[in-house]
Amino acid sequence: MTKKTINVALIGQAFMGRAHSNAWSQVGRFFDPPRLPVLHTICARHGETLKTFAEKWGWRKAETQWEAVCADPEIDLVDIGTPNDLHRPIAEAALAAGKVVACEKPLAGTLEDARKMRAAARNSKAKTFVWYCYRRCPAVALAYQLVRAGRIGKIRHVRAVYLQSWADQSIPLTWRFDGRIAGSGSHGDLNAHIIDMTRFVTGEEIVEISGAIAETFIKRRRRMVGQAAGGIAEGLTASSRMERVTVDDAVLFLARFSTGAVASFEATRMATGNLNRHGFEINGTKGALRFNFERMMELDFFDATADRAMQGWTTIYCQQGAHPYASAWWPAAHPIGYEHTFTNMAYDILCALGGKKPIVPLPDFEDAYQTQRVLEAALISARERRAVKLSEVP
Amino acid sequence: MTKKTINVALIGQAFMGRAHSNAWSQVGRFFDPPRLPVLHTICARHGETLKTFAEKWGWRKAETQWEAVCADPEIDLVDIGTPNDLHRPIAEAALAAGKVVACEKPLAGTLEDARKMRAAARNSKAKTFVWYCYRRCPAVALAYQLVRAGRIGKIRHVRAVYLQSWADQSIPLTWRFDGRIAGSGSHGDLNAHIIDMTRFVTGEEIVEISGAIAETFIKRRRRMVGQAAGGIAEGLTASSRMERVTVDDAVLFLARFSTGAVASFEATRMATGNLNRHGFEINGTKGALRFNFERMMELDFFDATADRAMQGWTTIYCQQGAHPYASAWWPAAHPIGYEHTFTNMAYDILCALGGKKPIVPLPDFEDAYQTQRVLEAALISARERRAVKLSEVP
Amino acid sequence: MTKKTINVALIGQAFMGRAHSNAWSQVGRFFDPPRLPVLHTICARHGETLKTFAEKWGWRKAETQWEAVCADPEIDLVDIGTPNDLHRPIAEAALAAGKVVACEKPLAGTLEDARKMRAAARNSKAKTFVWYCYRRCPAVALAYQLVRAGRIGKIRHVRAVYLQSWADQSIPLTWRFDGRIAGSGSHGDLNAHIIDMTRFVTGEEIVEISGAIAETFIKRRRRMVGQAAGGIAEGLTASSRMERVTVDDAVLFLARFSTGAVASFEATRMATGNLNRHGFEINGTKGALRFNFERMMELDFFDATADRAMQGWTTIYCQQGAHPYASAWWPAAHPIGYEHTFTNMAYDILCALGGKKPIVPLPDFEDAYQTQRVLEAALISARERRAVKLSEVP
Amino acid sequence: MTKKTINVALIGQAFMGRAHSNAWSQVGRFFDPPRLPVLHTICARHGETLKTFAEKWGWRKAETQWEAVCADPEIDLVDIGTPNDLHRPIAEAALAAGKVVACEKPLAGTLEDARKMRAAARNSKAKTFVWYCYRRCPAVALAYQLVRAGRIGKIRHVRAVYLQSWADQSIPLTWRFDGRIAGSGSHGDLNAHIIDMTRFVTGEEIVEISGAIAETFIKRRRRMVGQAAGGIAEGLTASSRMERVTVDDAVLFLARFSTGAVASFEATRMATGNLNRHGFEINGTKGALRFNFERMMELDFFDATADRAMQGWTTIYCQQGAHPYASAWWPAAHPIGYEHTFTNMAYDILCALGGKKPIVPLPDFEDAYQTQRVLEAALISARERRAVKLSEVP
Repeated sequence: MTKKTINVALIGQAFMGRAHSNAWSQVGRFFDPPRLPVLHTICARHGETLKTFAEKWGWRKAETQWEAVCADPEIDLVDIGTPNDLHRPIAEAALAAGKVVACEKPLAGTLEDARKMRAAARNSKAKTFVWYCYRRCPAVALAYQLVRAGRIGKIRHVRAVYLQSWADQSIPLTWRFDGRIAGSGSHGDLNAHIIDMTRFVTGEEIVEISGAIAETFIKRRRRMVGQAAGGIAEGLTASSRMERVTVDDAVLFLARFSTGAVASFEATRMATGNLNRHGFEINGTKGALRFNFERMMELDFFDATADRAMQGWTTIYCQQGAHPYASAWWPAAHPIGYEHTFTNMAYDILCALGGKKPIVPLPDFEDAYQTQRVLEAALISARERRAVKLSEVP
Repeated sequence: MTKKTINVALIGQAFMGRAHSNAWSQVGRFFDPPRLPVLHTICARHGETLKTFAEKWGWRKAETQWEAVCADPEIDLVDIGTPNDLHRPIAEAALAAGKVVACEKPLAGTLEDARKMRAAARNSKAKTFVWYCYRRCPAVALAYQLVRAGRIGKIRHVRAVYLQSWADQSIPLTWRFDGRIAGSGSHGDLNAHIIDMTRFVTGEEIVEISGAIAETFIKRRRRMVGQAAGGIAEGLTASSRMERVTVDDAVLFLARFSTGAVASFEATRMATGNLNRHGFEINGTKGALRFNFERMMELDFFDATADRAMQGWTTIYCQQGAHPYASAWWPAAHPIGYEHTFTNMAYDILCALGGKKPIVPLPDFEDAYQTQRVLEAALISARERRAVKLSEVP
Repeated sequence: MTKKTINVALIGQAFMGRAHSNAWSQVGRFFDPPRLPVLHTICARHGETLKTFAEKWGWRKAETQWEAVCADPEIDLVDIGTPNDLHRPIAEAALAAGKVVACEKPLAGTLEDARKMRAAARNSKAKTFVWYCYRRCPAVALAYQLVRAGRIGKIRHVRAVYLQSWADQSIPLTWRFDGRIAGSGSHGDLNAHIIDMTRFVTGEEIVEISGAIAETFIKRRRRMVGQAAGGIAEGLTASSRMERVTVDDAVLFLARFSTGAVASFEATRMATGNLNRHGFEINGTKGALRFNFERMMELDFFDATADRAMQGWTTIYCQQGAHPYASAWWPAAHPIGYEHTFTNMAYDILCALGGKKPIVPLPDFEDAYQTQRVLEAALISARERRAVKLSEVP
Repeated sequence: MTKKTINVALIGQAFMGRAHSNAWSQVGRFFDPPRLPVLHTICARHGETLKTFAEKWGWRKAETQWEAVCADPEIDLVDIGTPNDLHRPIAEAALAAGKVVACEKPLAGTLEDARKMRAAARNSKAKTFVWYCYRRCPAVALAYQLVRAGRIGKIRHVRAVYLQSWADQSIPLTWRFDGRIAGSGSHGDLNAHIIDMTRFVTGEEIVEISGAIAETFIKRRRRMVGQAAGGIAEGLTASSRMERVTVDDAVLFLARFSTGAVASFEATRMATGNLNRHGFEINGTKGALRFNFERMMELDFFDATADRAMQGWTTIYCQQGAHPYASAWWPAAHPIGYEHTFTNMAYDILCALGGKKPIVPLPDFEDAYQTQRVLEAALISARERRAVKLSEVP
């Protein structure tokens, strides 16, 4: 018997375009999902490169107008992989047309956009998903399971960082430095991930921002000429015209979680030495967890209930049969990589659409909106130099 | 202008069948090779699962007789992903038919088979390749480049291990424990990799085995029933009949390299705590290198020419623009995984077939035969309890 | 020719009493200081254990009244190793009597006490020292030197933590949980160290606290019976009477340094999994530094001016001839331990008293007062839930 | 009540002279041993530096003739810290005079000397000790305890290395390169330690050397002028005269333990990048252990009986109340250093002399002779290029 299929349309052919195309291509080869994705339509502004992209990845159709894609009755799922300012209009159109929507993170560049997207999702019967795909890093999914199993106890401390270092003075002013398109800099790009990740793993909500710093170290950059594809910062060319950067390079904030844990968050593009340090440490009354995406296969667990003389951090290599998503891939300790987090998420989306329970919970617009509120509260705290209750942010 | 294509036939649909299918599928998406592979024919004994496998991976044709595949005039390249005892007959038939051959490692289960394969390659005009794909781990390729650039100086010490721990008493007697099929146990399976890897990185040949131990800790295992697919040791079922294991669980040996370096090698399936520790340390007069596949993105380099107070092991995360194969994949420090080493190798094979220089050298039958001689010399040393010159092995 | 000697009187025979006694005993054996210390008088309240202590460590005289010690004309240097509330009265008496004073950190339990101590030091001709001895961890001293040598460039990020986990509910209410004696909890005990350490290494002052959290997770503890000696939390007995804890368990704060770097600090006694994680990471435009006292021999350095493909964190083992304090101790990579930081500091104090330049600068009361101001500003920020300029704290 | 004392005479004032003087000085301060050592006599050839040394460390008497020391009726224990060739004559004289003997490792430079020393010990009623002090590294002692407690199960693999890198061409020909004085090079100096350590931890004996390599990379060195004190290789001066090195730079060997475990050993002074890597990995049916002296506080333990998804290497920081020797020193995770292994051993010697059980077993001449046999068998194996049964070595 042939499985039912889902016709996917993907908007975007840059970095996220590649990652999502790969996920939809690979999911049926390594997993056995209840629905199989059809790579139906790829859509992007730059028609000249689009044909090659479509051929390479096996997209059946190429399209330059997202409005047409959202209107196409053949499409079941619209996958949004564009810069942040387009998330809202595309999502609204797709939801209005009854499509399932899978949107890149953060939900939107601004809280207002995010709120409208949540409203659109509430008004639609279609499911929504947001690509906070690091939840599907096997180590992060295991962390989630350990917290649920009571292995950490009551959580007292959360420490989360997303540290990069690519944004030195040589990097021109791409859309990521333009507040009108991106909304924010490292904050929406990186803090969004660790806010989602710690909310997910702890199962708790942030109720207060106790203080914050937002800093733009490099105030002016050369305007970029042409477009970048496939990377964050490599191979860009720039004009000699300097323009003002309108987003942050780094945002740090302190927070309190709903059950009393105290927390610190930091996102930056200027932490020399850190290429992509992205993770957390969580300390509870019974145990502790540590994760760093640069060593994504490893979860460190500390069991404070063990015999005292035997206590220590245990480094669990999360590619064994028992681990989340592991059996789909390779034998023990044969590592997977970055793009597999997308493929794992594509599997769980197909499960959700096919009536099967995902391996760990998926974030929808409602859920991603909570992360957006935290982002907003942190910016208010930095601007007004005071503690901010989350209840101040509607 | 459309690129020329290469029609590939793959023999094998188990663990290596998946890894090779993936490599041929992905290479054109992430790289821009001078030839594009066509997934033409998949061939395996078990016809019942083959159709699903072919559909999943996009193989155009499925075939159960490898002889027919080797005779098919449409096929350009025969890719051998079978157990070791079939490497020789398939390679001989394919080479006789003028096909390019890409053979899984080790070249063969026995030295005699390997020698015949080398002869067949010498008699053919077609290119041969052996899937020692860890050479294309970016960190290993960088190690190769650093030795060539003189950063290590004269090499004095080589230490290489491939330590696994999956083969406890519960594991039944699969083909990997059967000397008639596999030739040897951990030795051909694991030592083969680290012999190739250290020969590759150092650019030197092993000239003597100074001593060796071969040990089978578990002498008898339950005979396996049915077949395993997709893993090394997971999900196997076994009969209650015990049979004698005819391969080693562990082989250790000491060696000397051509320019005087002393070396130790160890392969085992019984080193509790080591899921897949696979790597080397090399110490030279000017520097040193360390690699462990469990953290495959990282190469440790020690620069002994630096200011004394600043010396130390530098952990290089080998996913940046400047690193081998990095630009094909993701932004800085977004890790790749196990299967990417195959995809990287598929790219270099397509380069070699399309007249472009591979990023680092590819092993052919001639080259892999040297690794086979070392494997043999180590077994003689273990058996005869004495040092063995490589010149004793023809 | 016999060296001039310094008659030392030490107040305190508990944890710090041991550490200081050891430092004064060992310094002349491993170093060649311009003055030699004489272990003249040990002073502590509990006379019954004092005699044994004095014999064990070779103190010539035992005394139970610190007033008498400060008045003793034979004493050159008064070393204060008592709980925080006694720092001020002893230091004032000793300075009034013209003695050199070496005081345990923090300078005092309250800012008011600290201010009076600074005034006493300003009014005296005698030198003062504060035992922020981690400055003399070879790795920290090397970090200081590297910043001075321009290897880090302009500093953008400082991250500092001092995480312990000993203070669970089983621990009774010792003086460390009593605000009247200790002044604060983890804040003065642990944050004091990392404030001093980052001020020392960066050479910059903190100009603003941008937000802070102070938290007491365990609000009530059993009152301790008797006394503890020699450890922080081991072997204590407790009554069944519960009393309110009047200090913090954890204090986190965000800060800005004088030249624009943004920073986070965290001290806690409740971070399960962290026995004694104490260190920093500093990211600058040219390089970065990382230190964790649990691996005290190691300094991680990242050279962002190196060839891109070779960049990485270099782990420098700081026990080689070229490293600060190394030549006094053992051959390369034979580690030293916790108490050696005191011995190294004793050496530098004797250098300062004998007219020789210390290996790295020593903190005096003036310097330690700046750390005290930061402690105070952080508490105000936590209490008033707002950013606090350091200039608000006199 | 005053404790009984032990009058100690120490022969040697160089590197080991300092380490032993420190141990005898410190042991009574941090431990409560049943006997207290008196630093009675220090003895060394170079009288001119001896007086200063004696004063510094508090030795009551200084002597240049070891024969006189052995004859002195006041001496209870003779502690031998000389180059290897003097171990035998001093030990024989001391034992003949009824003294307790504590001898530096290896027992002797040659097997013949070692055998005579064993005979002398057998003929004496006095206790003997050999300073294989790394047994008293808390992590190594814990490893010993875990093997005894059955946590590792049946041992299958032992891997031990002692890698240094100080002996490049610039280092002159000290006594350590002179076969007549040292007996061997890295072998007796470094392999001796890891042979003792693995015999101690496993509780098993080596029964066969399966193969070996002994290599002298640098054949000739400049003759040293004058003497070195206090270090291995720092601050030496050399003449221009080149002389032949008569010891090994590196020795590797493979071995089998009594219950079937296979093993590899490697000692070298030329492993660039390794300052002092000294440790082992042991894999058993139930668990595994890893130790590296460069991070001496840490023992890695792998529990193969734990739930599969939770298995991993646990890094135990061996400075907590429950750990061997920990309570004598500092609070949790305040590290100790190299010289503490000597102090810990001095404590256990004093326990043995005072009728108290040492924390872990002490090696005597009989025990150290077994290590010496292994050293000898490895040299025979390297020379004769064959496997050697230990039973071939009397």
